[in-house]
Amino acid sequence: MTTPYCIFCKIIAGEIPSDKVYEDDEAIAIKDINPAAETHILVIPKVHKSSLNEYDEADKNSLGSLLLKVKKIAHDLGVGDGYKTIINTGEGGGQTVFHLHIHLLAGKRLKETVG
Amino acid sequence: MTTPYCIFCKIIAGEIPSDKVYEDDEAIAIKDINPAAETHILVIPKVHKSSLNEYDEADKNSLGSLLLKVKKIAHDLGVGDGYKTIINTGEGGGQTVFHLHIHLLAGKRLKETVG
Repeated sequence: MTTPYCIFCKIIAGEIPSDKVYEDDEAIAIKDINPAAETHILVIPKVHKSSLNEYDEADKNSLGSLLLKVKKIAHDLGVGDGYKTIINTGEGGGQTVFHLHIHLLAGKRLKETVG
Repeated sequence: MTTPYCIFCKIIAGEIPSDKVYEDDEAIAIKDINPAAETHILVIPKVHKSSLNEYDEADKNSLGSLLLKVKKIAHDLGVGDGYKTIINTGEGGGQTVFHLHIHLLAGKRLKETVG
């Protein structure tokens, strides 16, 4: 399910350009346009769910799969030895786009806006 | 599988005391002894694997399950509206205990050591 007013749904649909580093049937990974570290990738499932709070038991497999994609992408990008995986949930948790995404951060920290 | 020299395996086995907020067959959740935020919980699977890099396709379900536990614990603790979920992988990623664990952070930030 895509949601027309969601910027990540538009990026997934190719309606807004992005710097894509990975894509498969379930997810895409793009460079964050406002990077908080030397490597800052967003791993975004193609199915629109607003946050981790919308996931339940039926989604176990796809959530686990998403974490494994983060691992794979980190290794593909040559940062598999040291990286951070961050999910922000809710405004108070620092979430700004309400389509679940996982931040993959590695290398020198540029700012403190994500962690 | 537990690993005798691992501090989290010792906590899981009850050999080292901890401030436990949750436990089931697969995981425990404890308060971080050196909190980086008002709420700082570590969700730790009972099976010892050193980091996300040791997880593979066979672990999809248990990884997804672990993220859903973070969500549940956040809600049980009354911080479900706003929280951060962080996994540090490797020394360069800020990992200090080499038994995979997920940080759950909410409320006022006390330091910048985790994100």
